[in-house]
Amino acid sequence: MRIRFGILGTAHIANRVADAIESSGHQVYAIASRDLERAKQWVSGRTSNKDDIICYGSYDQLIEDDQVQAVYIPLPSSLADCWAQRAANSGKHILVDKPFSSAENVLQITQLCRRNNLAFLDGTQFVHGPRLKEMQNMIQSGAIGRLRKVNAAFTAWIVDSTNIRYDPSLEPAGCVGDVGWYVVRFILSFVGYDRKVISVYAVGNETDHGAMDDCCGVVQFEDNITAHFDCGFTSGYRQWGECLGTLGMFRVDRFQGAPIPNSSEQKDPNLHFQFRQVGEERNGRIERVEKETKDIWVPSVGKPQSVLLIEQFVTLIEKQDKEEREKWAKEAWKTQLLVDAIYQSAKTKQTILLL
Amino acid sequence: MRIRFGILGTAHIANRVADAIESSGHQVYAIASRDLERAKQWVSGRTSNKDDIICYGSYDQLIEDDQVQAVYIPLPSSLADCWAQRAANSGKHILVDKPFSSAENVLQITQLCRRNNLAFLDGTQFVHGPRLKEMQNMIQSGAIGRLRKVNAAFTAWIVDSTNIRYDPSLEPAGCVGDVGWYVVRFILSFVGYDRKVISVYAVGNETDHGAMDDCCGVVQFEDNITAHFDCGFTSGYRQWGECLGTLGMFRVDRFQGAPIPNSSEQKDPNLHFQFRQVGEERNGRIERVEKETKDIWVPSVGKPQSVLLIEQFVTLIEKQDKEEREKWAKEAWKTQLLVDAIYQSAKTKQTILLL
Repeated sequence: MRIRFGILGTAHIANRVADAIESSGHQVYAIASRDLERAKQWVSGRTSNKDDIICYGSYDQLIEDDQVQAVYIPLPSSLADCWAQRAANSGKHILVDKPFSSAENVLQITQLCRRNNLAFLDGTQFVHGPRLKEMQNMIQSGAIGRLRKVNAAFTAWIVDSTNIRYDPSLEPAGCVGDVGWYVVRFILSFVGYDRKVISVYAVGNETDHGAMDDCCGVVQFEDNITAHFDCGFTSGYRQWGECLGTLGMFRVDRFQGAPIPNSSEQKDPNLHFQFRQVGEERNGRIERVEKETKDIWVPSVGKPQSVLLIEQFVTLIEKQDKEEREKWAKEAWKTQLLVDAIYQSAKTKQTILLL
Repeated sequence: MRIRFGILGTAHIANRVADAIESSGHQVYAIASRDLERAKQWVSGRTSNKDDIICYGSYDQLIEDDQVQAVYIPLPSSLADCWAQRAANSGKHILVDKPFSSAENVLQITQLCRRNNLAFLDGTQFVHGPRLKEMQNMIQSGAIGRLRKVNAAFTAWIVDSTNIRYDPSLEPAGCVGDVGWYVVRFILSFVGYDRKVISVYAVGNETDHGAMDDCCGVVQFEDNITAHFDCGFTSGYRQWGECLGTLGMFRVDRFQGAPIPNSSEQKDPNLHFQFRQVGEERNGRIERVEKETKDIWVPSVGKPQSVLLIEQFVTLIEKQDKEEREKWAKEAWKTQLLVDAIYQSAKTKQTILLL
């Protein structure tokens, strides 16, 4: 089935997701902006299917269009939650870009979609890629032994303080919601969404206008697993994540996604991670081993993560598999729950105990 | 001047430092163990100057030997502090392997040495190497802009729980004193020993016998600088450190020291680090730039870090430069102060506020 998508908002990311919608064989049916001219401009900037995209000068108009089956919402989080609920109330399946403005709002969206038999997915791309799945599979098969630590960092030097990321009325959790969302999602992808959080402690920096532009800290999970997170807009661009266990360790650069090379001769960095074995079980005892770090290249599935995201969303729409829908909604909720706790800890300078 | 060293204890590290003493043209004059046989065994395991080393069956005997000018103390920290003071009371210059059992004890040792006009240095090797100095120089010259974050990790999979590191009566701070000392020293080497610490928060794990075998957390310094630290005995061997600023970043693997290659054709990994520029100042504004990561190889000074440590110690003995002696004593004290705070936070599950 070819799904007709409506897009709420002309943010930069909307273009990339529109590409992914078209690449996966679905239709960018309509675009809405609060300003009709901006919607038209956005369409004129597209390279394909220009003439077929309907432009709306209000989000309501798009939501009321019966032809729209699914809505993609790349709005700032304080608006996204509200429009996600309105779209779901109009019977549209919803794909919402991260972050949300609170875990409570994620729950409300989930309940609404559950009641109306609608698909709901958040716009995190890397969790749909083959690299993450390969790392998860290796951990499940025992490659790193017992998991002890998952650490991740995502910082980007965002210089322009007029950026919406610096406006707490639009992005209440600042960098913790923005780049921090990916850090938290990476951590939970390996620690597991059901693992109890014992404590969260974060140190953050707030600008004069109350925007959190830097944050780092530590999360203690049950079973003696800890996580470091580091996110912010005030130091250089970097992304990395690592998983450490009693027998080995993984390291991945740009876990959230690197540009795909133009030439087919270059390898896709999104398929790469490193593994090093550090221990071996012999006769029920662990012995230390010294092995070289191995570069692991995951087989390509021939599609970028953005397309895999759209495919997953369409599968949720079509198959109506309740368990699968609950799984993805839970991941979004748990991620936002930890984002909220980190932000709260940094804001209040208190340890947040969750057990 | 050829300094005559006495060594208190036959720990593994004693051998390497004895090599460094000889390589730098000084003399391993005597070795003491609580068991004379062990001292003799240690000497028989040496390859050079075997017949010239005096063996003592008690630490007191070595300290009372007037020929001994300087004492190297590789004892567990709960013993080291006490023997350092006794050696200083006997007029010996003292080189003490890290960690100490408390910052208070470091102060007492320092005061005693100051009073008796003796040199005191801790046994951290990497701070004497050319790599750290080159990185510090680059930061001072503005290569990474304003410093925002210094993060470091040192974990080692120590399987054998009969290891002295698992005995709180010998090593009260467990992994925080052992591998954590290096992590803290790396952080302070860049953040600066005079920078005020605002808060320390750590999560640790204690064994059934009360030994801390894993610890990680975050330190908040003034001027909006933060540090992550991660140390422990329960995940694979890894060492890394990074310094992040508004214009660039450093990354170093095995900052505390990697084995020097046997062949002269291989490059010495202790001379390597990575640098990436991420911003540029133009007309008083910072602009984001995307540059490749550069591998930087520091010129060799032809000597390993262990020899540079001994040379620094001998310089402190010979030159009697008070300022220089205070500088090194302060670095040891500040390192132990932060080690103590980290341990205390992990132990009490409280944020330690130091401002």
